[in-house]
Amino acid sequence: MRGVVAAPEGLAGPEWVELFDPQPDAALTQALTAWRAEMAKADDGLHASPAPAGRLADLRAELKRRGLDGFVVPRADEHQGEYVPRRSQRLAWLTGFSGSAGLAIVLADKAAIFIDGRYTLAVRAQVDTDAFVPHQIPEESPDVWIAANLPSKGISGGGKLGFDPWLQTVDGYERFARAAQRAGGSFVAVEQNPIDAVWTDRPAPPLAPVLPHPVEFAGETSEQRRRRIADIVAAKGADVALLTAPDSIAWLLNVRGGDVPRTPFALGFALLHTDGHVDLYMDRRKVPDRTVAWLGNAVTLAPPEELGAAIDTLGKVGKKVLIETSTAPVWAATRLHAAAVTMVRDADPVALPKACKNAVELEGIRTAHRRDGAAVTRFLSWLARESKDGRLREIEVSDRLQALRQETGKLRDLSFDTISGAGPNGAIVHYHATDATERTLEPGSLYLVDSGGQYRDGTTDITRTVGIGTPTPEMKDRFTRVLKGHIALGTARFPAGTTGSQLDALARTALWQVGLDYDHGTGHGVGAYLSVHEGPHRISKVANTVALQPGMIVSNEPGYYKAGAYGIRIENLVAVKEAQIEGADRRYLEFETLTLAPIDLTCVDVGLLTAAEKAWLNAYHARVREVVAPQVDEATRAWLAEATRAI
Amino acid sequence: MRGVVAAPEGLAGPEWVELFDPQPDAALTQALTAWRAEMAKADDGLHASPAPAGRLADLRAELKRRGLDGFVVPRADEHQGEYVPRRSQRLAWLTGFSGSAGLAIVLADKAAIFIDGRYTLAVRAQVDTDAFVPHQIPEESPDVWIAANLPSKGISGGGKLGFDPWLQTVDGYERFARAAQRAGGSFVAVEQNPIDAVWTDRPAPPLAPVLPHPVEFAGETSEQRRRRIADIVAAKGADVALLTAPDSIAWLLNVRGGDVPRTPFALGFALLHTDGHVDLYMDRRKVPDRTVAWLGNAVTLAPPEELGAAIDTLGKVGKKVLIETSTAPVWAATRLHAAAVTMVRDADPVALPKACKNAVELEGIRTAHRRDGAAVTRFLSWLARESKDGRLREIEVSDRLQALRQETGKLRDLSFDTISGAGPNGAIVHYHATDATERTLEPGSLYLVDSGGQYRDGTTDITRTVGIGTPTPEMKDRFTRVLKGHIALGTARFPAGTTGSQLDALARTALWQVGLDYDHGTGHGVGAYLSVHEGPHRISKVANTVALQPGMIVSNEPGYYKAGAYGIRIENLVAVKEAQIEGADRRYLEFETLTLAPIDLTCVDVGLLTAAEKAWLNAYHARVREVVAPQVDEATRAWLAEATRAI
Repeated sequence: MRGVVAAPEGLAGPEWVELFDPQPDAALTQALTAWRAEMAKADDGLHASPAPAGRLADLRAELKRRGLDGFVVPRADEHQGEYVPRRSQRLAWLTGFSGSAGLAIVLADKAAIFIDGRYTLAVRAQVDTDAFVPHQIPEESPDVWIAANLPSKGISGGGKLGFDPWLQTVDGYERFARAAQRAGGSFVAVEQNPIDAVWTDRPAPPLAPVLPHPVEFAGETSEQRRRRIADIVAAKGADVALLTAPDSIAWLLNVRGGDVPRTPFALGFALLHTDGHVDLYMDRRKVPDRTVAWLGNAVTLAPPEELGAAIDTLGKVGKKVLIETSTAPVWAATRLHAAAVTMVRDADPVALPKACKNAVELEGIRTAHRRDGAAVTRFLSWLARESKDGRLREIEVSDRLQALRQETGKLRDLSFDTISGAGPNGAIVHYHATDATERTLEPGSLYLVDSGGQYRDGTTDITRTVGIGTPTPEMKDRFTRVLKGHIALGTARFPAGTTGSQLDALARTALWQVGLDYDHGTGHGVGAYLSVHEGPHRISKVANTVALQPGMIVSNEPGYYKAGAYGIRIENLVAVKEAQIEGADRRYLEFETLTLAPIDLTCVDVGLLTAAEKAWLNAYHARVREVVAPQVDEATRAWLAEATRAI
Repeated sequence: MRGVVAAPEGLAGPEWVELFDPQPDAALTQALTAWRAEMAKADDGLHASPAPAGRLADLRAELKRRGLDGFVVPRADEHQGEYVPRRSQRLAWLTGFSGSAGLAIVLADKAAIFIDGRYTLAVRAQVDTDAFVPHQIPEESPDVWIAANLPSKGISGGGKLGFDPWLQTVDGYERFARAAQRAGGSFVAVEQNPIDAVWTDRPAPPLAPVLPHPVEFAGETSEQRRRRIADIVAAKGADVALLTAPDSIAWLLNVRGGDVPRTPFALGFALLHTDGHVDLYMDRRKVPDRTVAWLGNAVTLAPPEELGAAIDTLGKVGKKVLIETSTAPVWAATRLHAAAVTMVRDADPVALPKACKNAVELEGIRTAHRRDGAAVTRFLSWLARESKDGRLREIEVSDRLQALRQETGKLRDLSFDTISGAGPNGAIVHYHATDATERTLEPGSLYLVDSGGQYRDGTTDITRTVGIGTPTPEMKDRFTRVLKGHIALGTARFPAGTTGSQLDALARTALWQVGLDYDHGTGHGVGAYLSVHEGPHRISKVANTVALQPGMIVSNEPGYYKAGAYGIRIENLVAVKEAQIEGADRRYLEFETLTLAPIDLTCVDVGLLTAAEKAWLNAYHARVREVVAPQVDEATRAWLAEATRAI
């Protein structure tokens, strides 16, 4: 495991410390590959599908012992992140369900699992649906189920539905508490999660080393960042901010970790004081001495178990604490309340400044995209050659893409699990290819690949849809409408103050005109060598009040999905920047396109494009060619010239 | 005053009752003209500008007598409507300011008037700005001013800022109360408005007769409506809804009145019970016996003064009352609270059903637009002829338009004061021409006219911008971009569930691309022979969560304004309807264009239009020609043929 910079969960030690070189090198990349292999071997049966029935029986027995009539099992850890360490994958352990969002509710005589439309098929494949009856949200809601099913008379008094206060957000708590009340019962916090009592071989906490993220990537020292955010906290009328989001802490302290896959942060909590001092609650074992030195005197390291006592102290000295109740755990609000701390409910003060990348971060991100674009172009060229005989399969194709990214020598990790969907699988929005599900890339079909890389200088995320052989006229019509939406959004100029919600329709109108739409957002924020999904901005039908601001990275990814047939998505990342418009009546913003890889012209119905749309596509392809051609081999270069020809 | 159906304020009597004929006739229209003349003569100096200084001195003396350190004077009546009866125009009486939105705050030694950007010039023309220092919202806010200026020590104890609880909304109250507290003072409700004590010649309450709005226009009986809304109130968990919006009451009871100009409703309050019964709190003198009979047994008429006692009774019998706190007066919430009534805070339950017009209402609205379109076309044809010598002035032009609407024999009132702006005056968004401000329609300029009619079958609202002589290339460019926005929005199809906020950008992108925008919403709801501005939907940058629904009427009115030079706005009303799209993946909606009058082709830069935009304009003009030509004289018809030629 020597030389690995992103530590596998539960593995750490002094050997990590030697990897402090701020410049990435080939050894790191090799090590990453080794880590991947290690992780693959390390499968401890967590994701046995369905989960052994004994687990549910054991949990029920434990609940009974504790006088609980039920228990809520969300797919969440203490930080409400997208990736959950194996130790916190209680839902997967209990049910076998491996999706990225879900919730089980276990009662003495029945149990339910709530999933969204992405997982209606997966839940049936992975879960014993006699034991856990599947329900689809938002059509069916857990609170309605609780209100209808929690017994009004329980083991002792009213029906008691337990929950782990570390895993439930403050805002989410209210809804369930009311539902339990409607049933004549109550929603009660349980100090020790009962699953942990019966999950005997539960993995250890991840202890990947916490490493510096140097200023040559961050563009700003941690001291500057802490000062800046401290002022924001003070302006909100608070003395201290409780940070529970690991990416906020990573950004604030200019460190990166490896506690979960795909997102290079370390799990922990932090208190930021208005003098810029930070108390960091993180396992000391994963913070090498060199990182302690890097953090400096204004950052105090303490064991996570001491956060509670620290909150008590804040109460004693009359401090006001800022807390984001949509993500902070009930545990925190309860402790703050018990300590008589005045809570200032507000957004995580790091989220917005983190989203607005500085010039150094932007330059790093551009570099990462030029590198990533070359790898993707090599992949697309390979795919064009190799897919002709119709024998390629989804997993080997995405493996190839990953290998080409690794060949850049700079890849730290993928930024998420690659979505590699052939034909009908492309229509499954969050598809994950397995041996059981993968399909062949057949002639006359579409192949959709959504992927990204974590590089130390930037995080990428790109989707391309490729015609295998000759696409049908319908496929071309749909592809072109998706492209029209992509261009309409990508070329938009808009006044400062405009939100992504206001722009979302631009990406949809070409589809709407023929009665088609896609059921996902159009764009999400992206971190700088951090989470591939970050807020507070987004481009979506869902109302969002955060204005787009210069330096924000956001994806532009309209799509169209025909169930059982094909899926189309075209995704570039873009950065918000000032628009220079002579005679403008106010400040205008526009997008700079970051992603650089060809868009498949064989799928374009040129007759549907306006002159302006054609001009955009030709200019984009010319830029792709200019940037990528010098980075690739001759065969790829020849293919690229054809793939980026003017139309 | 015989024969007038919309009564001037303060004038009413048995002679109104004879006008019960459900069909409008020429006598009514004549009477309306007579009424207008009467109202013009009846000017009682309310709008003296600036107001005599003695009024402010009298108010200050009165405040001192009452132990108040200040008083808030909003431009509002008890119903928070757009038009305020003369009796309630306390702000105008006190300051001379006649704008449609504003607020004065009077302290012992200083006073401020808060207006928005529309009235920065008007306030200086109308108000003694030494006495009332003008402040512009939202840049400057009344609560910040209160916090900074209310004395912490007042006449008796802490500084007391008084307000009239009938004129302050529940939601608005909070903000001011906090501001007064920040100043170390308090915000106190005052039972009798101190202005009323010193305004000796205050007009009497309006007593225009309340007349039936027959089912041939409403399409639904009041009983059906009351039943329908009562079910909504019950579903919200309330027993009674307090209705404070006069247009909600007019719609619910199928009656119309004339208490304020431009909007045919009667001022009053109502309690709707979940059995469909309504207690109507309205001055008995304005409800003729025939209307009492029309209202039927399920509607009980009571004097407005008895509303308080009725609320007390609701408390005694444990009823829950639905109240819309964004529009209901503090008085109501205070009384409900004192009576220990459980308040259900929710939207006015009438607003959404009222906005969704039924088939009969829609047919009436179409008829009204065909009629109105012919009058506007006659006007545009006249304008083209008469404007050639460059001598027409704004007021004579709008008078001509009004006269042509009156010639239809069906006009009950204008739906708002006509905006008739030549050249630079067109750039003033809520311009009102006066003898002092009106300009000549000069060659080489643009003329903007925004106007509408109240017809018994429907309410219209149309804006046209006309080139006088030859517009400049810049004017044509801007006009064409506004037109592109108008077409993009007008031709949009969108999934059911889409809000106006999501569509707003479609009307702006053609302007945004060249760094231009307009500072008003793109569309407002319109009533059926009711308010020309109604909710709950709108098309605007401001976030709005109400989805557009079939039957909703909304304006489509992008614009562009170059201060000191010209204004452009193109406005049609449209109705939301189901889109019939073969193979659609869900329910889609689209707009039916209601307004029928030519869009000035001399202002169009055809080269900027796409083929689809040209096709829309040609089809629209063909329809205008087809509908309007049979209704107009030969000269107009000849002009119309040219004005609607295919491009």
